[in-house]
Amino acid sequence: MANILLKARLALELPPINAALERAAQGLPEPVRPVARHIFEAGGKRLRPLLTVLTARLLGYERADIYDLAVTMEMLHAATLLHDDVLDNAVSRRGKPAAHTLFEVTPTILAGDALLAEANALVAGFGDPRLSLCFSEATSRTAAGEILEIVAQRRVDTSAAEYEEIVRGKTAWLIRASCQLGALRAGATDAQAAAAAAYGENLGMAFQMVDDALDFAPESLTGKPTGGDVREGKLTPPLRLYRLGLEQEERVAFDAAFGCGLMTENDAAAIAERIRDAGHDQRTRLDADAYLATARDALDTLPDRPERELMRQMADYVRDRKK
Amino acid sequence: MANILLKARLALELPPINAALERAAQGLPEPVRPVARHIFEAGGKRLRPLLTVLTARLLGYERADIYDLAVTMEMLHAATLLHDDVLDNAVSRRGKPAAHTLFEVTPTILAGDALLAEANALVAGFGDPRLSLCFSEATSRTAAGEILEIVAQRRVDTSAAEYEEIVRGKTAWLIRASCQLGALRAGATDAQAAAAAAYGENLGMAFQMVDDALDFAPESLTGKPTGGDVREGKLTPPLRLYRLGLEQEERVAFDAAFGCGLMTENDAAAIAERIRDAGHDQRTRLDADAYLATARDALDTLPDRPERELMRQMADYVRDRKK
Repeated sequence: MANILLKARLALELPPINAALERAAQGLPEPVRPVARHIFEAGGKRLRPLLTVLTARLLGYERADIYDLAVTMEMLHAATLLHDDVLDNAVSRRGKPAAHTLFEVTPTILAGDALLAEANALVAGFGDPRLSLCFSEATSRTAAGEILEIVAQRRVDTSAAEYEEIVRGKTAWLIRASCQLGALRAGATDAQAAAAAAYGENLGMAFQMVDDALDFAPESLTGKPTGGDVREGKLTPPLRLYRLGLEQEERVAFDAAFGCGLMTENDAAAIAERIRDAGHDQRTRLDADAYLATARDALDTLPDRPERELMRQMADYVRDRKK
Repeated sequence: MANILLKARLALELPPINAALERAAQGLPEPVRPVARHIFEAGGKRLRPLLTVLTARLLGYERADIYDLAVTMEMLHAATLLHDDVLDNAVSRRGKPAAHTLFEVTPTILAGDALLAEANALVAGFGDPRLSLCFSEATSRTAAGEILEIVAQRRVDTSAAEYEEIVRGKTAWLIRASCQLGALRAGATDAQAAAAAAYGENLGMAFQMVDDALDFAPESLTGKPTGGDVREGKLTPPLRLYRLGLEQEERVAFDAAFGCGLMTENDAAAIAERIRDAGHDQRTRLDADAYLATARDALDTLPDRPERELMRQMADYVRDRKK
């Protein structure tokens, strides 16, 4: 494995990260703690906290309080997942039942609100206005991205630029902020903080694009239903390429079914196969590579320490991800 | 009118407060602006922003940027109203249709998230960690209060202490923070900031208790359906007193109907009449008076300037409020 060092480091960092998440859960009102623990345990690879820790260490920050800062982006991420699951009326999340199917809608919404509030409080507790500004920017940008995505839902005329704007908000900005928080806490120069932010933002863009490509991979490989984005009315890059390649008659039929949310599982599977045959998913991965190249360039301006190599391996991981 | 000076000042402050709210709405993602404007226009007396402005001016702060800070608590309040309306599945709010009946659930939830994020960003923009801490504490406490309230819903064994804890969270903390933000921005001493916070917290407690008493006033006086709290399963002080006065047989019937959410409008109206006859609502207003006395005491330690008198009139207004 090319990213063996990264995996080893993740194994070392996971216990303090998970301990900080549990401390954060303890800080929530008792009734919503089970909801928070459920969404924390439902997984996630803890990439966001790991990025905060790696960025801070890369810039020479050695204190243990970094873990309490690192989990704030995971908490914000969890809050958005809780609200999203309710809004999408999703039945499962990462193979586990969606929170609101276990806990009902009200505690799920309120757990999201409480997580956001607690993350905000953790950041404010560091007493550094730059951290608070970074956090509030991340919440604003993420909310804006999700709103844009919902406006674009089931629309066939979403442009590539609009798609990028959605992804920058709903996914990339949190990853950007994860790196930026670590850099700011480490006392980075403005140039270093900007480089860390650029690395995170471009890594995040690539992460989502690879995700969008993987949506069309066979369920036997990913463990997730194929073509979920077709059924949810998300015109991601592989699907936009697919639609552009359709003859007029087929396109009219696609637009009608997509626009009305009438795509079945069978429709989605058939479209996924044609997307793979045409290589639209691979094309999207190549586009993601361009973002990863920008991310790696940003790293070059940061100190030559072991964490920099791990952050390069993170870019490889995002590129090579098969599920 | 005893509070004529307060009304005159409110008339002067409303335009810049509403202008700041409109600037804040402009800062939201375009799709949710109508939801935010709806909830802003649905009213509210702008007590929270007014308190921030009055507290800052009382402590000698003269700059116009206070309005952008002052509206953050109104935005947070609006965000909680949006989420609450969805959770309660309310059909109206302050006599206007509830936002989610006009805009659907998804934009309503996301407008709440976006308002919270934007308020957070406004506060962070001031670059003062004490303001950010105050803001994050307000969001945490408010979320905690709402969660407690939902846990207590339809329970007949909610104690007076638990009720106070709910009110402190769901209502008083935002009013407390409104005053505290104004004091902190004005460069208050720790003692002054604590006095401003104590004034706000106790004013907020009284405000909610008077509200709970008014819930049992005739609809012809308040314009709101009588006994809404009975039907929503909220054991507010007048209702707790009423229940304690019931003979065993009646109490068993009350507990069953209240606990299962089976109270009708007629039940609520009949209970309200008995509550008024027994004076339980007046008793609650007397308990609110005790909080107002504490609020006035806190004011005594602050400078003797015109705003202090206005803040006393605010306490009178809360006491005398008839709807």
